[in-house]
Amino acid sequence: MPGSVNPRVQRFLAERTKLFKASEIRELLKLTEGREIISFAGGLPDPETFPREELAEVAREVILERGREALQYSPTPGVTEFRRVLKDFLRGNGVAVNPDDDVIITTGSQEALYLIGKIFIDPGDVVFVEAPTYLAALNAFRQFGARFMSAPVDEDGMKTDVLEERVKEAEREGLRLKMIYTIPTSQNPSGVTMSMERRKHLLEIAEAHDLIVVEDDPYSFFTFEEVDVKPLKTLDKSGRVIYLGTLSKILSPGLRIGWALAENWVVTSMELAKQSVDLHSSTLSQYIAMEAIRRGLVDKTVEKARKIYRVKRDAMLESLEDYFPQGCSWTKPVGGLFIFAYLPEGIDTKAMLPEALERGVAYVPGASFFAEGGGENTMRLNFSYPSVTQIREGIRRLGLLIKEKIGEA
Amino acid sequence: MPGSVNPRVQRFLAERTKLFKASEIRELLKLTEGREIISFAGGLPDPETFPREELAEVAREVILERGREALQYSPTPGVTEFRRVLKDFLRGNGVAVNPDDDVIITTGSQEALYLIGKIFIDPGDVVFVEAPTYLAALNAFRQFGARFMSAPVDEDGMKTDVLEERVKEAEREGLRLKMIYTIPTSQNPSGVTMSMERRKHLLEIAEAHDLIVVEDDPYSFFTFEEVDVKPLKTLDKSGRVIYLGTLSKILSPGLRIGWALAENWVVTSMELAKQSVDLHSSTLSQYIAMEAIRRGLVDKTVEKARKIYRVKRDAMLESLEDYFPQGCSWTKPVGGLFIFAYLPEGIDTKAMLPEALERGVAYVPGASFFAEGGGENTMRLNFSYPSVTQIREGIRRLGLLIKEKIGEA
Repeated sequence: MPGSVNPRVQRFLAERTKLFKASEIRELLKLTEGREIISFAGGLPDPETFPREELAEVAREVILERGREALQYSPTPGVTEFRRVLKDFLRGNGVAVNPDDDVIITTGSQEALYLIGKIFIDPGDVVFVEAPTYLAALNAFRQFGARFMSAPVDEDGMKTDVLEERVKEAEREGLRLKMIYTIPTSQNPSGVTMSMERRKHLLEIAEAHDLIVVEDDPYSFFTFEEVDVKPLKTLDKSGRVIYLGTLSKILSPGLRIGWALAENWVVTSMELAKQSVDLHSSTLSQYIAMEAIRRGLVDKTVEKARKIYRVKRDAMLESLEDYFPQGCSWTKPVGGLFIFAYLPEGIDTKAMLPEALERGVAYVPGASFFAEGGGENTMRLNFSYPSVTQIREGIRRLGLLIKEKIGEA
Repeated sequence: MPGSVNPRVQRFLAERTKLFKASEIRELLKLTEGREIISFAGGLPDPETFPREELAEVAREVILERGREALQYSPTPGVTEFRRVLKDFLRGNGVAVNPDDDVIITTGSQEALYLIGKIFIDPGDVVFVEAPTYLAALNAFRQFGARFMSAPVDEDGMKTDVLEERVKEAEREGLRLKMIYTIPTSQNPSGVTMSMERRKHLLEIAEAHDLIVVEDDPYSFFTFEEVDVKPLKTLDKSGRVIYLGTLSKILSPGLRIGWALAENWVVTSMELAKQSVDLHSSTLSQYIAMEAIRRGLVDKTVEKARKIYRVKRDAMLESLEDYFPQGCSWTKPVGGLFIFAYLPEGIDTKAMLPEALERGVAYVPGASFFAEGGGENTMRLNFSYPSVTQIREGIRRLGLLIKEKIGEA
């Protein structure tokens, strides 16, 4: 690894990059690459949901007919026409777009998280999160020196009574309170959905303590059950919610199209920050996404995803029931891609992982999703990518392993 | 503009975003949007160079035949197969790819610049640059607290004797020297190309003072004359050069495909930093780019670009000769997209710009390209986007305006 030069700079870089904590999930995916492993570790959509033939045609037409623009540089906040189409699309899906709001297109919603960290977070600023929460958000915010305070989730989502206590605690300690980060619907990693009552409570807390709310919403468009998942953005009366979305789960992750919808002043700041990060996101992806939305391909994908994922979720829930021993529990998601399992205290899922891999099954140990520690006995299980057969077999193997661990085997 | 909430955070954000200096060029482009203006201000390739029909077919096939991968998430450093194809492509074009080297795909080369700033630059670190130099690089590095020291260019590129003096000066002052940033071939904004002698001298300086060299090379693939533009990367003996490239000028900017080629340890660090910035760049863009390279579309585009741009450059050089008054001078680029003009001392091109816009012609005032000030009498003129007719007319109008300014009208 060391080159022939500049040991000083190499040392500096080694120090520095410790800050960019490698995502445990990504490292894991590498581990299983090319091996015959049933993986519950990823977070990939089922490629069967991609409307390939239609997208092939859309791409061809867009390049032929609008190639002078679609292959050219484009404005930093996104292709103007696409931003308009996107706002209509969001409105049509129950997301409030207020007169003072604007939208910025980002390179996946990961970039939106990063830009939010970049413009809002100073070292020591408190960000309130769910326990567990999305690891990549923690990593993005951590780089800017965020200090996390968390509230646990139950089947109704983030426990907002605990959130309220934590906010007051932070105030008492004289900390700088900045924002609440939440994934209210079909949360990653836990799979739970926040009740309407708690959504309102969360906004009340934000209101009372003047906090920004970052609502990360990749999953609400394809819930498998009839539940009210009205976004915080729509319930918000005072323009404090920054709403993040993405096409990754409702069309194709490979386009890398995400967005943030928020009041103008936030979007303008994100645009300025984005200029030096990547100037703009793929113009071609934006034109393809725009046409796909216009032709109803997102609606079609959502319908397909809903059906496929419901079957897979049910297969996983049944398998867990059949194979996981007493003392284990797990969430029953109404949408999204993940089930979160709690094993008996004392089982360390991180320590157990190598054994699971030996038996040809992968998952993500839950501890890294907990910003303030804990969760050593938890695991995240993805049901969207593996087949139903793999799900049954993988959960069977995991169940056996856990039984051995608790001495029941 | 202010929303109904959080004046504290809004004030904070207003302060903060002053750091993200809006690119003067981008703001200018906005100004001229939709107006009948001959613009020499942009840096857009001529859309005539885009191989639209072939790319439409490539996109269609890639999605139909490889859509399960091309529409899916992909690894942070880029699609493995594409990285292989790209390395071969670079080798075939005279760029040395050493056994210890690796390549990372970025969202345009802007992201590569940003990631380099992120991993290398601590506040106060000295970055040596050309005067003038690429504004977006200055903006990216500035955010991490870079301190710039510059050496002027002449027709043979960066004056490396001055560079050497500046490096010694920085050492004497006890500053932390970090890197040299250079665009050796058809530089943006000046249009000049560094001689082979100076390229070697620059590397000797880097060697003697143990500096990283960032070589930004968007233009060397389509020079209009027979000149030796062997990259610093190829001349480098000790692995200190980080080589940046992009498909923006040799295929399509709308794909947003850039790359960095460097020793493993640099690429690994950039990968870790990229994980939280945008996870990965558009998978679809990468598959399209890979197939385009394989089918020789880049070579075809380069041939076309070379012809079109040579004609336009010549038209601009002739027009400058015909219409600009005595006391003006300008560079004679062998490639790239820009000519840089020096007006008589005392003319402030920034102050003159509104008058130019009134007469229906735009350019970029040169001062912002000078990291340490100066250049108030300079302007950057883009010849790749306007037509030959527009070039003659626009330069005529500018010439008249300048004559008025110096009292010759």
